[in-house]
Amino acid sequence: MKLDTDYLKSELKKQVSEQRYIHSIGVAKTAKELAIKYGEDPYKAKVAGILHDYTKYWQKEKMAAVIKENCVLSDDLLQYNAELWHGPTASIVIQEKFQIKDQQIIDAIRYHTSGRENMSMLEKVVCLADYIEPSRDFPGVDEIRDLANKELDTALLAAFNSTIQFLLDKKLTIYPLTILARNYLITEEKNKK
Amino acid sequence: MKLDTDYLKSELKKQVSEQRYIHSIGVAKTAKELAIKYGEDPYKAKVAGILHDYTKYWQKEKMAAVIKENCVLSDDLLQYNAELWHGPTASIVIQEKFQIKDQQIIDAIRYHTSGRENMSMLEKVVCLADYIEPSRDFPGVDEIRDLANKELDTALLAAFNSTIQFLLDKKLTIYPLTILARNYLITEEKNKK
Repeated sequence: MKLDTDYLKSELKKQVSEQRYIHSIGVAKTAKELAIKYGEDPYKAKVAGILHDYTKYWQKEKMAAVIKENCVLSDDLLQYNAELWHGPTASIVIQEKFQIKDQQIIDAIRYHTSGRENMSMLEKVVCLADYIEPSRDFPGVDEIRDLANKELDTALLAAFNSTIQFLLDKKLTIYPLTILARNYLITEEKNKK
Repeated sequence: MKLDTDYLKSELKKQVSEQRYIHSIGVAKTAKELAIKYGEDPYKAKVAGILHDYTKYWQKEKMAAVIKENCVLSDDLLQYNAELWHGPTASIVIQEKFQIKDQQIIDAIRYHTSGRENMSMLEKVVCLADYIEPSRDFPGVDEIRDLANKELDTALLAAFNSTIQFLLDKKLTIYPLTILARNYLITEEKNKK
């Protein structure tokens, strides 16, 4: 049974700021377009896009409680920046709230910030859409947008590179899963040659 | 019982190129100086410095065999660049060859390229000496040399940053242990404040 995406949007609106709501609608739209382009299910991409930031404005304590209560989530998350907590926690919360059972949607939400090794197509389109939806503006975003129209993995690699470069420049810790996601894409690309 | 370091040098000479031999003697000297400066054992630093690249010129297959035979070494190493294999393999080979039993020396050799979380002082001085010994020349090396005279952890963090930046620029994979080593130093620094 398909969920009404207008209902999901109205529920999201209760959880996030106006700006974050606009961003989420942008991610849903871009993820849907990328899904069509790369042969993934546009409905799943839209649902994951709408809900990917569902817990973004929750208090740290509330997110930490969700991480501690759900052993499926890595508890090493708690040692890292709280910016990384909303994807994994949203992936748990939306399951009960909206009766979402589709593991691909759940994982696309869970890994949308960090990425991981061997990402599914749905995970890739949602992660990339989060970087390039129309309201995003950071150095290099247009180059990643261009790449997204040509080669999904190359665009995603450029996106991870930009995150790692940002964290390196700002002297912030880097979540190892993002490094593993980048390593995987590089190795895959090398193996293709 | 202390090993004769002239004997270790003569044995090293049989294993590596002239240039690598000069580098190793430089690392031994710099590691010894850093050890004196930061209250670590200068003899241990010298021994680890002399031997840290002992297997650097071994064939890949010979290093891979050592990694596979010794379950103490992570076999995820084999998925990464062979440049990372000589530290761990040297740390195994020198134990039998020179009857070295000192775990601090063994670990300083093992982790000299990658680093790791919660490094010992000996591991730090050998790793840093490998970056800054007199024959080293790469962008930013003088800044790291200056830092090494003031604050060991800050210098080591700058060294890891330069490695990660290099790998990022060259589109090469990054060994996760180096990320964990960098994250650890950043978190430690933050906790001090």
